[in-house]
Amino acid sequence: MELENDLYTESGWEIKTNTFDPEQTIITGSNFLAGNGYLGYRGTLAEWDKEDYVGCIVTDTYDMADGKWRELCNAPNGLYTKLIVDEQELSAFEGAGETIDYQRELNLKNGVVKRESTWKSDAGSEVELTTERFASYDNLHLLTMDYSFKAKEDTKVTLVTGIDGAVWDLNGQHLKDYQLMEEEDLIAIEATTVEEEINLDVVEGINIIGGRAKTENIIHQDKKILRKLTFDLEAGQEVTLEKFVGIYSSNDVDKPLGAAVNDIATAEEEGYSKLKEKHEQEWAKMWDVSDIEIAGDLEAQVLLRFNLYHNIICTPAHTDKLPIGARGLSCQAYQGSAFWDQEIFNMPMFLYTQPEIAKNILKYRYHTLDGAREKAEDLGYYGAYYPWISGKTGQELCPDFFFENVLTGRKIRNHFNDWQIHISPDIAYAMWHYYQATGDWEFIENYGAEVVFEIAQFLFSHAYFKKDKNRYEIVRVLGPDEYHENVDNNAFTNYQAQYVLDKAVMIYEKLEKENPEQLEKLLSKLELDSSDRENWEEMAELIYLPQPDEDSLLIEQFDGFFELEDATPEEVESRLQDPHEYLGWPVGVATRTQVSKQADLLQLFSMQDRFSEEVMKANYDYYEPRCEHGSSLSPSAHSIIASKVGYLEEAYDYFMESCTVDLYNTNKAIHGGTFIGGVHTAACGAAWKMIVQGFAGLGIAGEELKFNPALPEKWDKIKFNLQFRGKSLIISIAPNKFKVKMKTNQGEEALALNVNGVTKKLNEGESVEFSI
Amino acid sequence: MELENDLYTESGWEIKTNTFDPEQTIITGSNFLAGNGYLGYRGTLAEWDKEDYVGCIVTDTYDMADGKWRELCNAPNGLYTKLIVDEQELSAFEGAGETIDYQRELNLKNGVVKRESTWKSDAGSEVELTTERFASYDNLHLLTMDYSFKAKEDTKVTLVTGIDGAVWDLNGQHLKDYQLMEEEDLIAIEATTVEEEINLDVVEGINIIGGRAKTENIIHQDKKILRKLTFDLEAGQEVTLEKFVGIYSSNDVDKPLGAAVNDIATAEEEGYSKLKEKHEQEWAKMWDVSDIEIAGDLEAQVLLRFNLYHNIICTPAHTDKLPIGARGLSCQAYQGSAFWDQEIFNMPMFLYTQPEIAKNILKYRYHTLDGAREKAEDLGYYGAYYPWISGKTGQELCPDFFFENVLTGRKIRNHFNDWQIHISPDIAYAMWHYYQATGDWEFIENYGAEVVFEIAQFLFSHAYFKKDKNRYEIVRVLGPDEYHENVDNNAFTNYQAQYVLDKAVMIYEKLEKENPEQLEKLLSKLELDSSDRENWEEMAELIYLPQPDEDSLLIEQFDGFFELEDATPEEVESRLQDPHEYLGWPVGVATRTQVSKQADLLQLFSMQDRFSEEVMKANYDYYEPRCEHGSSLSPSAHSIIASKVGYLEEAYDYFMESCTVDLYNTNKAIHGGTFIGGVHTAACGAAWKMIVQGFAGLGIAGEELKFNPALPEKWDKIKFNLQFRGKSLIISIAPNKFKVKMKTNQGEEALALNVNGVTKKLNEGESVEFSI
Ligand SMILES: [Ca+2]
Ligand SMILES: [Ca+2]
Repeated sequence: MELENDLYTESGWEIKTNTFDPEQTIITGSNFLAGNGYLGYRGTLAEWDKEDYVGCIVTDTYDMADGKWRELCNAPNGLYTKLIVDEQELSAFEGAGETIDYQRELNLKNGVVKRESTWKSDAGSEVELTTERFASYDNLHLLTMDYSFKAKEDTKVTLVTGIDGAVWDLNGQHLKDYQLMEEEDLIAIEATTVEEEINLDVVEGINIIGGRAKTENIIHQDKKILRKLTFDLEAGQEVTLEKFVGIYSSNDVDKPLGAAVNDIATAEEEGYSKLKEKHEQEWAKMWDVSDIEIAGDLEAQVLLRFNLYHNIICTPAHTDKLPIGARGLSCQAYQGSAFWDQEIFNMPMFLYTQPEIAKNILKYRYHTLDGAREKAEDLGYYGAYYPWISGKTGQELCPDFFFENVLTGRKIRNHFNDWQIHISPDIAYAMWHYYQATGDWEFIENYGAEVVFEIAQFLFSHAYFKKDKNRYEIVRVLGPDEYHENVDNNAFTNYQAQYVLDKAVMIYEKLEKENPEQLEKLLSKLELDSSDRENWEEMAELIYLPQPDEDSLLIEQFDGFFELEDATPEEVESRLQDPHEYLGWPVGVATRTQVSKQADLLQLFSMQDRFSEEVMKANYDYYEPRCEHGSSLSPSAHSIIASKVGYLEEAYDYFMESCTVDLYNTNKAIHGGTFIGGVHTAACGAAWKMIVQGFAGLGIAGEELKFNPALPEKWDKIKFNLQFRGKSLIISIAPNKFKVKMKTNQGEEALALNVNGVTKKLNEGESVEFSI
Repeated sequence: MELENDLYTESGWEIKTNTFDPEQTIITGSNFLAGNGYLGYRGTLAEWDKEDYVGCIVTDTYDMADGKWRELCNAPNGLYTKLIVDEQELSAFEGAGETIDYQRELNLKNGVVKRESTWKSDAGSEVELTTERFASYDNLHLLTMDYSFKAKEDTKVTLVTGIDGAVWDLNGQHLKDYQLMEEEDLIAIEATTVEEEINLDVVEGINIIGGRAKTENIIHQDKKILRKLTFDLEAGQEVTLEKFVGIYSSNDVDKPLGAAVNDIATAEEEGYSKLKEKHEQEWAKMWDVSDIEIAGDLEAQVLLRFNLYHNIICTPAHTDKLPIGARGLSCQAYQGSAFWDQEIFNMPMFLYTQPEIAKNILKYRYHTLDGAREKAEDLGYYGAYYPWISGKTGQELCPDFFFENVLTGRKIRNHFNDWQIHISPDIAYAMWHYYQATGDWEFIENYGAEVVFEIAQFLFSHAYFKKDKNRYEIVRVLGPDEYHENVDNNAFTNYQAQYVLDKAVMIYEKLEKENPEQLEKLLSKLELDSSDRENWEEMAELIYLPQPDEDSLLIEQFDGFFELEDATPEEVESRLQDPHEYLGWPVGVATRTQVSKQADLLQLFSMQDRFSEEVMKANYDYYEPRCEHGSSLSPSAHSIIASKVGYLEEAYDYFMESCTVDLYNTNKAIHGGTFIGGVHTAACGAAWKMIVQGFAGLGIAGEELKFNPALPEKWDKIKFNLQFRGKSLIISIAPNKFKVKMKTNQGEEALALNVNGVTKKLNEGESVEFSI
């Protein structure tokens, strides 16, 4: 079926296009990304270079080249390949020969990216090219490509293929000291990063099938090492170049060059098909637990899978020491670093499908505790204040001066790094969520308790006590709605803080009862005692939580929000003097109005199950029309709450809006001169949430797994897997029927399911149905 | 002697000029102001109108004409007079006849403003004009002028004189419903203000001496009522027009017209000379206690008197219900309203010379308590939060949007009105200062206690308690340095708050002991009890007072100040993209630097006598070079502290800088399109402080009046009067000798004087000397 933005799908498992739009090279490069959580190879064409935003982002290569932004590096492009016919390079761009046929495809099922073109040189030679590539999930350091070409008539062609080390950098040039090497029949580039002196090695090997090169040379050319092969093609003869690229950094192994050489030697022997098969097996396992089927809406189906795909490949599932980047590994934007997005948007899908990955995500925060402690101390607090932008070490990567005032050219001092404190409670919240969904108390004992205690300490040391009101207040913060900095008693932040302080006390008490030795060890390590627990308890009890107004049921987003000018997003945008102006603090046009970047209360409702439907509805009705959706995190919260309050049409619209941020190119890739393109991974993770937490209405109430399902009219059925406390479930929801099946071998204990308030027990291997 | 700006003086009692600079009509209009605390008549020429910034500002006529600024009204100009010779109007401007001779004078001794010109018409007739005017201190509603003219040859002249009701308005037209009236031989205009419907009546009567008009008509012309008189002057014949103008508003008396008519009928009978004599007697009384003699420096002498003069005439000494305007009655700028300037800059001179006037100034704050209570309540606090800009009622007159960002044309939200809380403790501080200097405990019982308690309540309700640090903090304020808004623990504010909380407790305890009934009455009125006193005491004890660093002795201006960019004022100014840019919050070029508008710590040192000389010196050395002096309040604090730490040359330079803000026209009268001209009355009041608190080093230590004198090299001697606890003293300071004389009839009790640590007793009628 036709999708928007000149895309189409056939099975709901692939994204295809038959048109080439040079204006969209940035966006297609991100959307057609191949990746595996270790590297991301952008969906660019083989013959392109850095001018066309070719990129191969490698995780764990944080480096600062401009004195300001520490970001991931782009590796030399080992897939670089061009075909020269009649002394003309095959090209998709207009004016370079003639493109007779063009197709690209991202196969979501196996992460294989294909391109087919038929191209005629100006001199009249017609060549058919078929390529496919994948970033292997069987060997994360392996990138492969099958590059097959055949000519209509007898034609002499030249194939140039190798490693292009002249890479695209967002903020300064990271690679230096290029060494171009030949190892047996392999070629390689080793380069070193300018700040951290990480060695980054790219090794390439090839197989040629279906023909034999007439000549073959290896060329060392500045930062490129290239093979030049010539072929005398007979009419209809298809030659295949199989490329195997191995990528290692010295952060991965001691001898990255040797490791890559080994891998590629083996890969050459195994060949493309074998490698692809092993890779596909891994994808099959992942989809087996992660897929969500939507019957009756092929567009929603493929959009959903597109987002789940990207949420998978952006996640460094293989390690517990690396973050999920806000743009994943699709480019260097946002530094390959984690925001609160990681725990609140990316993680839930893993938590309920592959909880071991969720655990890795959370352990990353445990491993970066020292960075958070350092930040807290620097700012005069106790405990752990997690960075707004978190790379490998957990040190704050967010600079003081962020956006630019485009009207004056002056940098803006945004306080994301020192005032947006909700990141800390959000992390503790996610750890508790992990415990609730998995029952994995060991995680809490070994990792979570320390993090949660340190966050509770931070919150206590940040808070002010108002003696005249006998309450704790949280002053001068940003909530998720970043257009409003410097606010007090932000409802989102205060509720999250209260939630976490409460959990800190619960953990303390459970440990005290069940494992006092462990508690003692921890308290002694953290220099805490029972008086700290008392502080947390008192603060949890006395913290000011803005309550719904008795009449309107509205909860004020922060102190004084309702006194701000009540303007519409359209009115506010009409005041822009330049379309690139930042709308927020300190002088943006939204700052002094009720127009939000995202709606804090709706976000809060999507996370805490303590507000009545009436309250959620009243607040949705108020905050939704005042939201400008300046963040890609925004539509999903709207969809989830619209689901919860029965606005199914709006829930569906926001679902589609959230799912198409990248694919339909609805966001600018370059803003105020800054590249902010790439895949919006939080929106990708949110796709899962909108289905499972939104439409299916998943929640946890004590020991019960509960649902409040409601499907959009268009949908005949949805079906998905769920892991809950060690049990594998298959959920299917039709308009009138809610069905849960538990797989076999899930333990003897029955699971209590609560659907719309009706509780039923479910045993392994059995199914249970609810009328809805 | 010659002064700057084409001015000169002869005796040190007058400011004269022989040049006319049309560029300076705004500034000379302010500097040559005649006034008496009820009205201010600008130093403009008799033939001018609103285009030349003629103004007669009348106190207690607050009115809002533009929906935003409530300001004092300009009354119809009853002194309007022009002379027509050969059908040409006599004029000081080039191109209208020829000015042969021109002189103007402000006589500081009696507040008489003179003008002499010899003028030749284009047709060749030469006329000599001599005028003088004063705003009577004998009858505050009376403005008079002597307008004498004589021709060199026989000449026909026409005199047009009357009332010009077309007045200059800064923010919207305030007067409507003009009634032009003739009452017997008087003429009058009554108009009504647009908002408050105040009737404003101006009645004019004249005497003609030395000649007789050939014809006399009265003309009603739009908003003018004018007499037209023609004279056939003989050569050398001098004709004098005596004008008597009575001004009343319906806020003064029920029947303002009748009152003015009565006054003017009497004035006509008494005549100009008699009225002037009575007026001069009042000035003599004032100078008798207020003058400060400086021997050896005529420029400093006249500058000082110029400032004392303006500090006197800007003060509505006749009432306890009106504020001192930041520009006095010199124009409508700053709304004729009080800032903290009133208590901290204008009042001290009166406190130590005419304490009854100081009492009136302070009682104004008592009478406006309800406005301050309203503001506190509106902002969510208890007690009294005094307005940043205070008119008659004490309601906040400072609008939310104040300056404009000249680069974008957008209004700036400055937080003078909600974050600059030090105004409240400053008022309480001044009340305690009044009590210390006068011993007038009755004032505290009847007025001060209520104000101080309400301010203590406000401070307590504003403060946050930081449990982790066991201290009270004051968060999100502006100190006097307005370039830095949104700061925490501003040293000035915290020390002032502590001072006042401490005094609130002292007052409570003294009342409890000495007048428990009065205390009970007050507590019951304010709904307070002993727990509130405990709160004040605890806060006074536990409030965070930034301490001098052990090594550097520096006190940080506010939390994080030393982490701001350390740039010079010059460097910061070089970053301006437009010379009219506001330097402060939220995006001005000084905001994120250590460059201050005025130096908070130095201001604090000038008010609180608790810091060692070493600490003051270290902080002076640090903060002085970083101060941009963007406020006319700034140089005086620098002068005072420079005196205290022995930097006498700098103290002198800052004294001269402060004293010449107006006279030497060193400040812009129009800034970013906004008129901010007029007399800087705080700097005027500061002149007295710089001498008495700075060079003489006046202080109060318990029962002792103490001095730490140090004169600039240039000065041979200074001499001034002082009132202290009911005793009249004459102080004279020569380089090596400090002499105090107590007048006779000052009571039996001896006064303890402490000069540089040496204490001596002084009895009435006696003198005492100290070597210094
Ligand atoms: Ca809507
Ligand atoms: Ca200096």
